[in-house]
Amino acid sequence: MRTLIRDVSAITLDGEDRLLDSVEITLEEGSILTVGQAPPDFAPDSVVDGSELVALPAFFNAHTHAAMTLERGWAEDLPFERWLNDKIWVAESALKEEDVYWGAALACCEMIASGTVGFADHYFWMDQTARAVEESGMKALLAWCHFGMGAEHELGRKSFEDTVAFVERWQGAAEGRIRTTMGPHSLYMAPPELLQRFVEEAHRVGVGAHFHLSESHEQMEQSMATHGMTPVAYAASLGLLDLPEPTLVAHCNVLTPDDVELLSETGSWVAHTPKTYQKLAMEMPPLALMLGNKVNVALGTDGPASNSDLNMLEVMRIAGLVQKGAQRDPEALPRSQLLRLATQAPAAAMGFEGSGVLAPGHPADLILLDTTASHWIPRHDLAAGVVYASHPSDVAYVWADGQLLYARGEYLTLDVDRIRWEAERRAFRLVGQPMRSMRRYPG
Amino acid sequence: MRTLIRDVSAITLDGEDRLLDSVEITLEEGSILTVGQAPPDFAPDSVVDGSELVALPAFFNAHTHAAMTLERGWAEDLPFERWLNDKIWVAESALKEEDVYWGAALACCEMIASGTVGFADHYFWMDQTARAVEESGMKALLAWCHFGMGAEHELGRKSFEDTVAFVERWQGAAEGRIRTTMGPHSLYMAPPELLQRFVEEAHRVGVGAHFHLSESHEQMEQSMATHGMTPVAYAASLGLLDLPEPTLVAHCNVLTPDDVELLSETGSWVAHTPKTYQKLAMEMPPLALMLGNKVNVALGTDGPASNSDLNMLEVMRIAGLVQKGAQRDPEALPRSQLLRLATQAPAAAMGFEGSGVLAPGHPADLILLDTTASHWIPRHDLAAGVVYASHPSDVAYVWADGQLLYARGEYLTLDVDRIRWEAERRAFRLVGQPMRSMRRYPG
Repeated sequence: MRTLIRDVSAITLDGEDRLLDSVEITLEEGSILTVGQAPPDFAPDSVVDGSELVALPAFFNAHTHAAMTLERGWAEDLPFERWLNDKIWVAESALKEEDVYWGAALACCEMIASGTVGFADHYFWMDQTARAVEESGMKALLAWCHFGMGAEHELGRKSFEDTVAFVERWQGAAEGRIRTTMGPHSLYMAPPELLQRFVEEAHRVGVGAHFHLSESHEQMEQSMATHGMTPVAYAASLGLLDLPEPTLVAHCNVLTPDDVELLSETGSWVAHTPKTYQKLAMEMPPLALMLGNKVNVALGTDGPASNSDLNMLEVMRIAGLVQKGAQRDPEALPRSQLLRLATQAPAAAMGFEGSGVLAPGHPADLILLDTTASHWIPRHDLAAGVVYASHPSDVAYVWADGQLLYARGEYLTLDVDRIRWEAERRAFRLVGQPMRSMRRYPG
Repeated sequence: MRTLIRDVSAITLDGEDRLLDSVEITLEEGSILTVGQAPPDFAPDSVVDGSELVALPAFFNAHTHAAMTLERGWAEDLPFERWLNDKIWVAESALKEEDVYWGAALACCEMIASGTVGFADHYFWMDQTARAVEESGMKALLAWCHFGMGAEHELGRKSFEDTVAFVERWQGAAEGRIRTTMGPHSLYMAPPELLQRFVEEAHRVGVGAHFHLSESHEQMEQSMATHGMTPVAYAASLGLLDLPEPTLVAHCNVLTPDDVELLSETGSWVAHTPKTYQKLAMEMPPLALMLGNKVNVALGTDGPASNSDLNMLEVMRIAGLVQKGAQRDPEALPRSQLLRLATQAPAAAMGFEGSGVLAPGHPADLILLDTTASHWIPRHDLAAGVVYASHPSDVAYVWADGQLLYARGEYLTLDVDRIRWEAERRAFRLVGQPMRSMRRYPG
């Protein structure tokens, strides 16, 4: 499959913060072939008119729970304990395996339509999520979440061994678009022996791990009391930050300076999901301190039950606005850095090396945004337009590995009408209420 | 003109936080006639199918500088002084009167398409903005900004008298859709004698005032040193908080407890524009303290040169997220309160009493959002969907005073293609650069 995009502006993120105007981009066999002028002998299978569009690397989402789309809007304006115990766990207790497929497929629709082609997911019945990823053409780093408090707490009562078997079953599937990793829920839910087994299995299989880490002062105090160490130091002591593939830890809201150094030294990736922190009134992580100490940070949304959505444009914007405000510095997190944190950083965190750069030889994971809507005019600065003013509806074309997933509102890999219907029907069943709004099954 | 909206869900904001399902709404002669069931003899001129749509009061924007769309993206990631002196004032020095018309018309397009029908504007050459408002079908409270440092600093070298003449010329124009008010830029730009003349003229004409107030610690200190009073106390001492119509003050980033009490006692309206505060790294105003002391607060965007856009959905979302985070309370500013702060509050601040409520007898200023996109599914909570997950592109229909301004992407009052072209052409002239992106004049 050879694609030619003609007459397009391009934000390359190739290290020079270049904006190219009126260039040609060619894609071949999953990779970007050229950026600038098409080779004279290039015979495209399809041609896209890029005038008044801007090309940029596609977004990757460093931390989510995709199937929790089913609980979107089900637990609003609530403190964390009530959010979790009174609402989310009640709904999840009714969850069946196939529900996860439809919830994850719905998430894939939403992500594709807002320019995201890859995500790091952490949930249950992950074969279902893997199936949705495979069909969608997206990329993902998938972890089967395991609490380790006893199988009765695990959805579907799956064992540790089941979750490891998932990792082996799906690693490298879908032509390499699916990668897998170990998925302990967190350090505070699992006994140390289980965490050690995760480390052993990660080494045996050759993967990393993805888990929640150091989310609150309470967790910090509990860890000090129980282990005499911070959560990050405890994770390191167990070997969880030194695995064959990068470790991806979500949140790190509360860190000591030593923790920051440890995360930096170990090359761990920290997923930063600021909309959730604000919405659930959690501590805002010390992002400036992390970035200043060369900790690998990547942006994500968290699950749609807390964040409400899976919109990386919004997360990128919120991350920047929060830091400018908190640091009292309007130059903090400039737009080019925000774009990197939402594209190449999460891609690297998931092991999709090379994605997030618009340059020859890199994976053809890219999007085109339409810049003709009134909120774009005048187009003095296209990067500022993307970061501070664009809407998901500006996303006009989405490619992953050179495959066109979305074009001008049309989903080319997923049956969005059926997915929305199935997901909504199942979501209302979970909460024991009749479906309200969607009256007609389209088509 | 009689309109029937059939089979629609409705967020009424009529004091009971009701969500109505599958109701009929009728509009007649600029007002809402019924919400629930249409009168048996109602003979509509037009019928809108509201299935899978949610109706809610339209948004009002409590503070902006509409024509500054022309500088959108022209001054990014910069400290305030460089933003203003190196960039904004340089561009504005090339501004011509007709540019203001096209910049304001562009702003009207953007606002309408994102569900806003009214705005409080503060800028120069305001006849041009008034003309755009009149043509657009929107509502506005317009103030001709006057610095008072000497006419050479005023765009077009307009005098104080010119700005007062504008107030008289346009008050109540466009069938009452245009209201006017006095527009001193701020207390720190004008000598006290001029501010007193604003007060005198406001009483003579029977209007209020709209100005920038207490935006920084520096202004607070300067006011204490010069006047021995805080900016708010100084404004009150001049009579600026006790005018025939409500006073609307923008920002109030830095307030003492006495200031809060004074704002509350005088019934002044405070425009709160949190995206700008974050983006320019300004102090976040004490919103909880103001709301707790019954200060009238209304949300706004500020001008598109600082905010980047005019999106009240986003401002509402950011206002809520910032307060939940800052107050460490996820129950702070719940979704119904945020909706009020973005609809009925700014409408009242502008003197459009009764707008912002979906109930019989109220002005027919309302919007319908399409809830079928994947980011809405499942529709457990439509108010949460609007506040935390919706996109401007969900706005499907917009009415102001019963006139349909926008329907499924079509602008019914404005020539958006011509406006975008003219605005972009002029914006690039202001900054002395060739137009880059818009190559074709459509149509």
